[in-house]
Amino acid sequence: MTPQKIVIVGGGFAGLNLAKGLANDERFEVTILDRRNHHLFQPLLYQVASCGLSPADIARPIRQILRHAENVTVLLANAEKVDAEAKQLITSKGPIPYDRLILACGARHSYFGKDQWEEFAPGLKTLTQATEMRRRILSAFENAEAENDLEKRKANLSFIVVGGGPTGVELAGAIGELARHTLKSDFRRINPAEAKILLVEAGPRILPMFDESLAAKAQKQLAELGVEVLTGKGVTNIDAEGVEIAGQRVAAYTVLWAAGVQASKLGSTIAGAEIDRAGRVKVNDHLAVPQHPEVFVLGDMAHCANPEVKDKEGRPMPLPGVAPVAMQQGNYLAEEFRRIASGKQPQAFSYVDKGSMATIGRSRAICQSKGIKMTGFTAWLAWMFIHVYYLVGFTNRFGIIIKWTWNYITFRKSARLIIGKEWRFGRKPD
Amino acid sequence: MTPQKIVIVGGGFAGLNLAKGLANDERFEVTILDRRNHHLFQPLLYQVASCGLSPADIARPIRQILRHAENVTVLLANAEKVDAEAKQLITSKGPIPYDRLILACGARHSYFGKDQWEEFAPGLKTLTQATEMRRRILSAFENAEAENDLEKRKANLSFIVVGGGPTGVELAGAIGELARHTLKSDFRRINPAEAKILLVEAGPRILPMFDESLAAKAQKQLAELGVEVLTGKGVTNIDAEGVEIAGQRVAAYTVLWAAGVQASKLGSTIAGAEIDRAGRVKVNDHLAVPQHPEVFVLGDMAHCANPEVKDKEGRPMPLPGVAPVAMQQGNYLAEEFRRIASGKQPQAFSYVDKGSMATIGRSRAICQSKGIKMTGFTAWLAWMFIHVYYLVGFTNRFGIIIKWTWNYITFRKSARLIIGKEWRFGRKPD
Repeated sequence: MTPQKIVIVGGGFAGLNLAKGLANDERFEVTILDRRNHHLFQPLLYQVASCGLSPADIARPIRQILRHAENVTVLLANAEKVDAEAKQLITSKGPIPYDRLILACGARHSYFGKDQWEEFAPGLKTLTQATEMRRRILSAFENAEAENDLEKRKANLSFIVVGGGPTGVELAGAIGELARHTLKSDFRRINPAEAKILLVEAGPRILPMFDESLAAKAQKQLAELGVEVLTGKGVTNIDAEGVEIAGQRVAAYTVLWAAGVQASKLGSTIAGAEIDRAGRVKVNDHLAVPQHPEVFVLGDMAHCANPEVKDKEGRPMPLPGVAPVAMQQGNYLAEEFRRIASGKQPQAFSYVDKGSMATIGRSRAICQSKGIKMTGFTAWLAWMFIHVYYLVGFTNRFGIIIKWTWNYITFRKSARLIIGKEWRFGRKPD
Repeated sequence: MTPQKIVIVGGGFAGLNLAKGLANDERFEVTILDRRNHHLFQPLLYQVASCGLSPADIARPIRQILRHAENVTVLLANAEKVDAEAKQLITSKGPIPYDRLILACGARHSYFGKDQWEEFAPGLKTLTQATEMRRRILSAFENAEAENDLEKRKANLSFIVVGGGPTGVELAGAIGELARHTLKSDFRRINPAEAKILLVEAGPRILPMFDESLAAKAQKQLAELGVEVLTGKGVTNIDAEGVEIAGQRVAAYTVLWAAGVQASKLGSTIAGAEIDRAGRVKVNDHLAVPQHPEVFVLGDMAHCANPEVKDKEGRPMPLPGVAPVAMQQGNYLAEEFRRIASGKQPQAFSYVDKGSMATIGRSRAICQSKGIKMTGFTAWLAWMFIHVYYLVGFTNRFGIIIKWTWNYITFRKSARLIIGKEWRFGRKPD
């Protein structure tokens, strides 16, 4: 029997779990493509942006993770187009024929049509973006220290995070911690604790996926770290000098974007597939594109209806773009493929919601799971435990526990490096 | 009494040790300038280039190191020119007056007038350069795996290191280890162990600063890791396709530069100072510029005669550009300044040579100190111990011990990331 050609695009949580699930099963010949050589533990990306961890702590080569999976080939390449008629994927390394195609290439930031904002307010999806955020944050304190003009010094010490979801909350909290604790004794002319940190959310409250009482608690914890929260007000403009919020200017040289996301464009190349407003491909309860049952879409790229959560009109909401959804979908599809290959009955995918958590800083977090709510130190410990548990690779895990313990005791953050672009002497692009 | 204005340019081993030595001594008002925000443990930079360590493992913010030194101001700025007449340093943040000026901004790579080679053969002096080397090395293996043309695949699997000093030897050995051990099971179409690694040295032998028997041992250890050593032959050209060695072409898409260095140009702006061929400023035995006794030059930037080592004509040779020289000079100058401030007799600087070491790979190193020679595992342990001992900062040290132990047991290298520039699909600049 010739093995089935399985082609997976994307080495994130969904794609990687699927590949692992099919490892060394001779009925499948798997190719996994990614534009980058590493799997990234995205939930901790904000820690790289805020100097707590190094890129290598949260990333591992896809190749290395799958090195013992003899039936899996890892390919560093760019997927350009799905040719569903001819059953082949067009890539930068030529066309790849498939029996089953799985798209799991995630989402990127969306600026709601204002792409010119990206330069002034980078998003947080890749390691390159995370080190760029880190560079901007640290450079802002450096520039403030050297600045004689009081207005400019203030703008250097102003940080605006746009978007009140978990990423925005975690980023704002981490900057607060950096300013209040980590950098405390480092400067001679400025007091880093005077930094203004503003979290702007257009919706009525931050963390809408959490229970209202928990979101309020998070906001209180943010306030303790000096983070001001502004809700119900949209950002109307962003430029090199700052942000316009509901028409009002706030001077700030560091603006970080944690608002909308847009799914990878690859989905729109599937002939006949239905795409939602966020660019996600609508899939059925087997995660397949209805028009092409041999094409599957997983993770942040998929619009997968969740019958358990309905909107005001009673229609099922799509599953959220979070790591547990992607992981479960990858695992499900591997099992499903094996079931079908063994002649067993196919089963539909159903998501098990184990809860949500967000961390605000040292000893500060919120956590809800099946009616249980936790805040503060207990929630923070739970957060730590789960994130370390799911981290791929032993060295990473162990190294991170040590770093976090050390950071916890000393208030330090160990990766405070300005690298990448050489440090700019002026404030903005020169 | 008004404190003396001490201005230090450069937060490397020399500048940092001087600043630490003057910390909290009220007789001095110290400003330390650097273009980068971090002190870099340069002897381990090759480990970042070869995926063994992360940038943050070997770098710490200068500010953080000196945070409790109340009389020290750290400034992120570019030093542009010395105005020795007016006793001020011209910087990107304006002029800074000084009573005593110390230049310790090190050296950069020199391509012997062939600056166009830099693009094809990056040097190894900064973290940005190290991650760029890492990107090139890992991308070469990736491109080889995806390449169908046999000639091109071979050129992708060919690595040339130019320069047989410690850096060149350590780099070549680390690439050998990566190819032979770390990447062993990672690829499906290529065998990484077939990589050709060539170390080219124009002089008669590698590691000229070591005893001949040790250098021969190092060459044997390199051979065990698949590194071919070519001595007595100069590189005559470098381009995107490879290298010309003594007129003969070798196809190789990855070429790394570890040959000549050139001291920072700042030295040449000191009016009347004598500059040697490598751009170093000649200093007297108090490390001062004879024409300006209040201007001092330390470390790789200084041409400091060593009366104990003479050339063939019997003239004293300059001290080598290594970390122990820079450290001792920084410490000496701090003591000297304090001596003079206390009204004691000035003393001349004298270098204590504690020996040299180079590591070739796992369990492979050479080491010589005061007539004692070591090789293999013992030398490697000594190398580990000394490098960990001198690393600034506890987390770094502890984290590195764990990484190295883990890497030692598993043959793994934990920082195999292609980041910075997004991965290029073509082979060369597109």
